Amino acid sequence: MKACIVGASGYSGQELVRLLTGHPLVELVAVTSRSLAGKSVAEELPALRGQVADMKFAPSSIEEVVALDAEVFFLALPHGTAAEYASPLVEAGKRVIDLSADFRLGSPELYEAYYGQPHPDPELLRKAIYGLPELYELSWEKSPLIASPGCYPTSILVPLVPLLEAGLIETQGIVANSISGVSGAGRQASERFSYCERNESAVAYGLPRHRHLSEIEEQLGLAAGGEVVISFHPHLAPMNRGIASTISVVAKGSPDARAVEDCWAHRYEDRPFAHPLPSGEFPDVAHLVGSNRVDFSVVADQRTGRYVVTSAEDNLIKGAGGQAVQAMNLCAGFDETAGLV
Amino acid sequence: MKACIVGASGYSGQELVRLLTGHPLVELVAVTSRSLAGKSVAEELPALRGQVADMKFAPSSIEEVVALDAEVFFLALPHGTAAEYASPLVEAGKRVIDLSADFRLGSPELYEAYYGQPHPDPELLRKAIYGLPELYELSWEKSPLIASPGCYPTSILVPLVPLLEAGLIETQGIVANSISGVSGAGRQASERFSYCERNESAVAYGLPRHRHLSEIEEQLGLAAGGEVVISFHPHLAPMNRGIASTISVVAKGSPDARAVEDCWAHRYEDRPFAHPLPSGEFPDVAHLVGSNRVDFSVVADQRTGRYVVTSAEDNLIKGAGGQAVQAMNLCAGFDETAGLV
Amino acid sequence: MKACIVGASGYSGQELVRLLTGHPLVELVAVTSRSLAGKSVAEELPALRGQVADMKFAPSSIEEVVALDAEVFFLALPHGTAAEYASPLVEAGKRVIDLSADFRLGSPELYEAYYGQPHPDPELLRKAIYGLPELYELSWEKSPLIASPGCYPTSILVPLVPLLEAGLIETQGIVANSISGVSGAGRQASERFSYCERNESAVAYGLPRHRHLSEIEEQLGLAAGGEVVISFHPHLAPMNRGIASTISVVAKGSPDARAVEDCWAHRYEDRPFAHPLPSGEFPDVAHLVGSNRVDFSVVADQRTGRYVVTSAEDNLIKGAGGQAVQAMNLCAGFDETAGLV
Amino acid sequence: MKACIVGASGYSGQELVRLLTGHPLVELVAVTSRSLAGKSVAEELPALRGQVADMKFAPSSIEEVVALDAEVFFLALPHGTAAEYASPLVEAGKRVIDLSADFRLGSPELYEAYYGQPHPDPELLRKAIYGLPELYELSWEKSPLIASPGCYPTSILVPLVPLLEAGLIETQGIVANSISGVSGAGRQASERFSYCERNESAVAYGLPRHRHLSEIEEQLGLAAGGEVVISFHPHLAPMNRGIASTISVVAKGSPDARAVEDCWAHRYEDRPFAHPLPSGEFPDVAHLVGSNRVDFSVVADQRTGRYVVTSAEDNLIKGAGGQAVQAMNLCAGFDETAGLV
Repeated sequence: MKACIVGASGYSGQELVRLLTGHPLVELVAVTSRSLAGKSVAEELPALRGQVADMKFAPSSIEEVVALDAEVFFLALPHGTAAEYASPLVEAGKRVIDLSADFRLGSPELYEAYYGQPHPDPELLRKAIYGLPELYELSWEKSPLIASPGCYPTSILVPLVPLLEAGLIETQGIVANSISGVSGAGRQASERFSYCERNESAVAYGLPRHRHLSEIEEQLGLAAGGEVVISFHPHLAPMNRGIASTISVVAKGSPDARAVEDCWAHRYEDRPFAHPLPSGEFPDVAHLVGSNRVDFSVVADQRTGRYVVTSAEDNLIKGAGGQAVQAMNLCAGFDETAGLV
Repeated sequence: MKACIVGASGYSGQELVRLLTGHPLVELVAVTSRSLAGKSVAEELPALRGQVADMKFAPSSIEEVVALDAEVFFLALPHGTAAEYASPLVEAGKRVIDLSADFRLGSPELYEAYYGQPHPDPELLRKAIYGLPELYELSWEKSPLIASPGCYPTSILVPLVPLLEAGLIETQGIVANSISGVSGAGRQASERFSYCERNESAVAYGLPRHRHLSEIEEQLGLAAGGEVVISFHPHLAPMNRGIASTISVVAKGSPDARAVEDCWAHRYEDRPFAHPLPSGEFPDVAHLVGSNRVDFSVVADQRTGRYVVTSAEDNLIKGAGGQAVQAMNLCAGFDETAGLV
Repeated sequence: MKACIVGASGYSGQELVRLLTGHPLVELVAVTSRSLAGKSVAEELPALRGQVADMKFAPSSIEEVVALDAEVFFLALPHGTAAEYASPLVEAGKRVIDLSADFRLGSPELYEAYYGQPHPDPELLRKAIYGLPELYELSWEKSPLIASPGCYPTSILVPLVPLLEAGLIETQGIVANSISGVSGAGRQASERFSYCERNESAVAYGLPRHRHLSEIEEQLGLAAGGEVVISFHPHLAPMNRGIASTISVVAKGSPDARAVEDCWAHRYEDRPFAHPLPSGEFPDVAHLVGSNRVDFSVVADQRTGRYVVTSAEDNLIKGAGGQAVQAMNLCAGFDETAGLV
Repeated sequence: MKACIVGASGYSGQELVRLLTGHPLVELVAVTSRSLAGKSVAEELPALRGQVADMKFAPSSIEEVVALDAEVFFLALPHGTAAEYASPLVEAGKRVIDLSADFRLGSPELYEAYYGQPHPDPELLRKAIYGLPELYELSWEKSPLIASPGCYPTSILVPLVPLLEAGLIETQGIVANSISGVSGAGRQASERFSYCERNESAVAYGLPRHRHLSEIEEQLGLAAGGEVVISFHPHLAPMNRGIASTISVVAKGSPDARAVEDCWAHRYEDRPFAHPLPSGEFPDVAHLVGSNRVDFSVVADQRTGRYVVTSAEDNLIKGAGGQAVQAMNLCAGFDETAGLV
């Protein structure tokens, strides 16, 4: 399968280049970047030296991108910009996997409420599938446009959705705390994200209404069959990659870790990247870096009548590029793990 | 004032040595250590070279310690061991500031439930004061034994206690998440705390019943005038020092950040180390390292009817050695900030 | 090809497990560990969850190891111990790639001088090949025993050997400084290698006669056709992986960066993992982590008549496990890069 | 003594604010910043909350600065800009301690060769003293303008100058390698110095002619009584602060660590911040952070006929703000350590 990455100068784009050049069933025909067009990929992304031969960044005007001889296009672009590419690509009969937020939400209104601008293509929004492979069956037949979920949502939805569907937890009182590595802020020249400011630092940000809250609550609500309103507290910690989420939820009835473990085991028994751990083991970002897995576990707290669910993932792989490749594998009929282990 | 530090080989002890050698009103007459007795302090704690002259670690048998010509004794010892020193010191008419957990709880039963052993001296436990200077008036007259609070409790109690006392928040549904630097685990030879295991890692631990929960809930209950049961989720992140806590609490009535800010301003207007920030600014561990301050702020979340309270401190200063020195300053009638800025 | 890893509990062993389970032409039939025998590999090396199925650590008595149905054995054992396995394995007709120092030196005397004990098998030492694929032609015909080089030597020998062979530099006055990540010290429970001691630290160690000096000087001497004595200064810096070496060498005649670049280009034009950069670009450990490449470049300093050669690599891949797999690929007639990109 | 800091928005400026607000004999009357004029110091430098009361950044036009009621002015400005302030301040009878490179070199020609622009005030350059207190006697009588040395030079000059003066080492073949924390690059919004680029990285830079080379060689030459040309290799490692230097020098005669130790002991016996360690102990940046000390030691290498000298310091204290305060203490007749321990 011939693939193209549109907007490959950031950390998610770079991870996609790495994954797709190593994918046994994919030929990466082009990597575009507005700012780096014409430059050597190996020089601009030196971690990929020796892996990208003499590939150069292609220009990324919409016309040039649409004209590329590729079947699937990964959009690693800012929200707003991604939609500008998705529409003509879908019209031209291409498959699109969008890593931005443009097509993740169910309504243009919610998009506008969280992203501060009218949705750029409400019609196309209706056609897109939320691309979390552990929750939705993905195929090009259902839609040529996969909206690949964000990093925080993946770490929260994979463990919680089955519990809501199974009625094991209440929809009220959910409090999710997440700790993210700094790459989650993207590649940028900014004093705030400079080494000396972020090193030896731990800090909350974006309270109380981080943008990812919109897709988290929408997906939890779909699972629960009704509105779900949660508290979501993102933090930055001094590491390059990874997200660790710790989620406090009220048990229906007396909390029973075994019931949760059984629910997950049943739901995810065939899923290679959703990885429940035994109660008492806590997923550690350090063990997920470089992997497309999301690990998670539960502790029952009889004192509070709550479960504590913890999860961890690599924000640039399961939380971005790896998840997008996983979606492509499923849509294309490849083995789900191709190029991901 | 002549002071002695008992058990100065760990990180809290080292911080105490640093603070007390720089304190303008204190003479540090002895620093004891069972394992390092006779060795040079400067060689064993090389960060203090040039600051401790040719001081040597004194032996730390109980008899030798009690016989030392000092008025105030800081105990930087493991729980259980601290009580063995506190009793004879108090009997000998000495002042004691204990950094361990031995005298922080109100009942021997609670101690046994959380520390897994009978309380070593229930009678003395009744006489001790919980040494959080922002919450309790400390003086040698009230008690010769100050139980200096732990690092996690300080970061949670300083912001929450006034809100419970003022009836601004519910006692139900409190969820506290904390991120700690690795020095919180103490100085130790352990694979788990080796550099390569903790670097690029974020992980929860000690769920659902970390030992510090006992003193947090007890103090919150005293403030609320009734039992308080909370969820407490400690985490480790790759930094040497610091604690960042993010606490979700249910507002009584509609959440109003101003009401919380006013409550804190009123309560802490004269306190040099309790430092509320304006709503919308989030305390960052990076700004607290090396300081005895605890910074905190609030965000009102109308969607959930909750407040999000965030706080940060240096776990080895406001969360250990600095807090103990602050307590001594107050008991001795010194300026509260002496030796701490 | 059926492979076995002997002693897989350390960081190099873990990297080997990762590489060999992903190798398209290798079946990893056993992973042994004295301390972990019978335990789940996924549980003990949790970064490999999902990649090692339900593999368990096999016992590692010499008899049991020799009896394993594998053709090639990777020894990730301490020096001294490795030789105990190499001898019976070679006698039993197995291929052995030893990652320890036991067979890297040309004489038992040199081994004893640097490792403080008589060489455990001088006869076998004579048969081993120094397994740096960029310098030596490796094949099972030449020897069934490959002594895979250490991490520091690789970063110094790959750039310097061609320059000595070509007579571009003097053999006198070579000063090599190296900065290593902490994993170079191995997986261990030690206060010295605890997180808080190594974080925010940079420090020299092992001066003036680190053990790796023996193989560095021996190989440089072989290239120069005479004795070479160098200054070698290893340092630790707070990162998990990687080595950056900066080597000052006296130019023969006026220093000319182009001459060095041409020499490297000629020598390494077909080598996928020896990667010269243009003069003026400096290899950065951050770009090598996860790769089997060693990057290097040169600067000519007319003021001193010296070249400054800088290099970087991942100490656990090109400096350990990856190099061993590369050697196996070449000996087995596989593509040199199989399983390594 | 009334002091003013001109240009306090960077890391060195911030360290000066911290040191001078805690100095028992100094009143910090103004802190200026072009970009932050009118803003709250506590808000812009939040680590100093609680220490700077409600101080605001003063405007920093030359006229306004000269008119300030202060006796000593610390210039924490870029080179070129610093000279614009130094001249009118000195003319106005003020004392000036300049942390930039503008007055460190002996000749305008050398300045132009390394800084790429004509020296802004050659006449004043002749009057300035190189402000390394361990090497030069500092006093306002000798000059009202102290040129405070850079971070790399301090770490190299303090150990080497006595050895050159005593004739213990050759002037040829000196190779100095330094590892710096990232704060050495200053506070800046730059992708290159962003967290994710510098974390898990070690890299050389500025080869072969870093600007600090000019003052290092000039001062070494003055000590040796003749020209000294050295190799100097700066590196960045992932830590906030600190410099570790490892310097290879050729011994005159057979290397003898004791002779070097005696030389240092004699030269520095009364100096509180020059701290030789016994041979075999290596100074570690981790032990210097927060201190104004520079620690150093020597190893004799009989094999190469060289000494290996290692040193470490906090680049923002002994390498910048602390050194400037130390110079002020000496010039003002204060205790050398006032405000520095």
